[in-house]
Amino acid sequence: MYNLKSKIGMTSTSATQTRLHSHREQFPALGNKTYFNYGGQGPMPQRAMDAIAQTQAYVQQIGPFGNEAYRWIAPQTQAARVAIASELHAPSETITLTQNVTVGCNIAMWGIEWRAGDHILLSDCEHPGVIATTQEIARRFAVEVTTCPLKATLNEGDPVKIIAQYLRPNTRLVILSHVFWNTGQVLPLDQIAEVCRNNNSFLLIDAAQSAGLLPLNLTELGVDFYAFTGHKWLCGPAGAGGLYVRPEARESLKPTFIGLNGIVVDSQSQPVDWLPDGRRYEVSTLAYPLYVGLREAIAIHQQWGTSQERYEQICQNSEYLWRQLTALPDIKCLRTSPPESGIVSFQLINNQPQANLKLVQFLDSQRILTRTIADPSCIRVTVHYFTLESEIDQLIEAIQSFSKIN
Amino acid sequence: MYNLKSKIGMTSTSATQTRLHSHREQFPALGNKTYFNYGGQGPMPQRAMDAIAQTQAYVQQIGPFGNEAYRWIAPQTQAARVAIASELHAPSETITLTQNVTVGCNIAMWGIEWRAGDHILLSDCEHPGVIATTQEIARRFAVEVTTCPLKATLNEGDPVKIIAQYLRPNTRLVILSHVFWNTGQVLPLDQIAEVCRNNNSFLLIDAAQSAGLLPLNLTELGVDFYAFTGHKWLCGPAGAGGLYVRPEARESLKPTFIGLNGIVVDSQSQPVDWLPDGRRYEVSTLAYPLYVGLREAIAIHQQWGTSQERYEQICQNSEYLWRQLTALPDIKCLRTSPPESGIVSFQLINNQPQANLKLVQFLDSQRILTRTIADPSCIRVTVHYFTLESEIDQLIEAIQSFSKIN
Repeated sequence: MYNLKSKIGMTSTSATQTRLHSHREQFPALGNKTYFNYGGQGPMPQRAMDAIAQTQAYVQQIGPFGNEAYRWIAPQTQAARVAIASELHAPSETITLTQNVTVGCNIAMWGIEWRAGDHILLSDCEHPGVIATTQEIARRFAVEVTTCPLKATLNEGDPVKIIAQYLRPNTRLVILSHVFWNTGQVLPLDQIAEVCRNNNSFLLIDAAQSAGLLPLNLTELGVDFYAFTGHKWLCGPAGAGGLYVRPEARESLKPTFIGLNGIVVDSQSQPVDWLPDGRRYEVSTLAYPLYVGLREAIAIHQQWGTSQERYEQICQNSEYLWRQLTALPDIKCLRTSPPESGIVSFQLINNQPQANLKLVQFLDSQRILTRTIADPSCIRVTVHYFTLESEIDQLIEAIQSFSKIN
Repeated sequence: MYNLKSKIGMTSTSATQTRLHSHREQFPALGNKTYFNYGGQGPMPQRAMDAIAQTQAYVQQIGPFGNEAYRWIAPQTQAARVAIASELHAPSETITLTQNVTVGCNIAMWGIEWRAGDHILLSDCEHPGVIATTQEIARRFAVEVTTCPLKATLNEGDPVKIIAQYLRPNTRLVILSHVFWNTGQVLPLDQIAEVCRNNNSFLLIDAAQSAGLLPLNLTELGVDFYAFTGHKWLCGPAGAGGLYVRPEARESLKPTFIGLNGIVVDSQSQPVDWLPDGRRYEVSTLAYPLYVGLREAIAIHQQWGTSQERYEQICQNSEYLWRQLTALPDIKCLRTSPPESGIVSFQLINNQPQANLKLVQFLDSQRILTRTIADPSCIRVTVHYFTLESEIDQLIEAIQSFSKIN
């Protein structure tokens, strides 16, 4: 094992280890289990939970409703928008606060003025919630939806070429995940954005698995809509996420679910316009304490390192895991080369029915948290920048014990 | 003042007063101010805030993501649905959890399959967020929106007759508030529902000011869609509300914003159907701790009394306030008879510019929280079942001081 660690640069100094352990102590969820479900939900730092509770309490003190409360709440949500924007490298006025990534995808999908005969292109690795929305849009507006086969490009082939082949003159919208939730593949979005732009197609990115994982620069990336959540890799509370809308795409994307938070009213409270920025897609009363919590979580990550540094550590961790899994006789990693993300998916080679589920349940019983994925049938393990080598070692040992008794 | 209290049954015993004071101690917001903004946001009970914080912490202990966490969270949100349903007297499967009342209205408004030439009828007292949504629907689907004049029926005239006059053969949807947010008028929904049903028009109710104020029996009431929020009269957290959809209307109301929480997937994670109940309109990751908080707030109200008892106390309080305001020489209450809700709206008779705003600011400076309304131009004071007579007396005295110096 020493050689392996050395090979991928994991000869960490004891100072680094001390810093990592003390960083991890900020996350209570990490204290009593071995956690590999960052792609499902990230653990919240204690400071984020405290900030939520303090915000609830403080607003009771000054309000909860009234001029003083409003004057205090407005800059809090603005600060959350700024913190999110700093992680995405985008201006804060491009950010819409949403409940989760799926709501952000829906804002983009329903905000396009569909014409009968329009075409939507999806990859074959998109999330069921997004697929279901395209099906309903297809039914209501006589839009056609097709799927391009990107799952098979995990180890070979060029996703950009395939997308280009599946585009049609009438493709209004392309929907892709930045990081596939099932296999962990990272798509080359800069090239894909160019292909879509040349075809006059909007590009919506499901960023559920990328915000907080990849270093991002949305302004340079050139995608139109980038929907993300705060509760996975960013380790914020469930119920707080957002949507980036490229300034050039804003006037083409109409608000659908509409409320007082997104509009300008006249002196008689009559709606007269949209707000000029990303707030136009927000509806009404926000759970604002949650965004204060998300801001705290982002601050904790940024204190640890830049998004580039965190991503490099994630890749070191996933490579370390991938190499050990690959060395096991009865495990097949879906990827044939080290992962580009924190997602490592693998299968048991034995053909027993529900073998993957049984292993996940066995790991659960050891308080090692992973999950199964239905398509492709596999076990998904996700590692963050603060995952410990010793946690990965524990997982490998537990898989070995499971293999012995099965 | 003694006579007035006696006249409207406010000769409360000291036992009742003691009970009321100890009940109020559960709401920290009430401790340092005189609060009349229940129609904006209700104060949260400490137990609700604690429940939110404990839920956040407990989920970190068992998850946050994994089988154990999921098994614990699912019954928590179900219990919140049951608690909400008990306040509305409706089966829990009719309830969709939403972020706020406006989201609920949007689900209903966008879920109808609009045809060009359809007609939407609104009252002239609807909320700007709802108005803006109808305008966007009108633009996208060539639907016509008209308004019927109900504001003028606050003191005389019959809103049911006016609505019947404004209905057209092609009216697909009627949108009304149960309690008008500006004047506090309560509409006779049972009669209105019948008129709409006879016209084959859906009836959507904006219940922002009624859930937690009026005793409700939605099953008997016969409205199609009833959108409410938890953070006003129910005193839950900002960001948690819901929508009731009448079971008979469910198949006609299509989900619009769609996600994993509302669909059935097959063994390959492909969407194959909607969930059979109100969850079909839910999207994805909920801020579930907030619904646990809302459940606590509802339990606290139900411990105090039935919804009928709470409503009667609200009406006693608003009548007490209304009578004192009416007796003031430079105040004109919008209503000429005692209010039917907890909303009491009034104007200053003097014609100084921004007189209402100045009074609200003066009251603010005394830590007495009220608000202005733009149309009709007035000050809105809202009283809950736990508002004290002494708070109302304080407000009246402050208005008198303001009049003296202005």
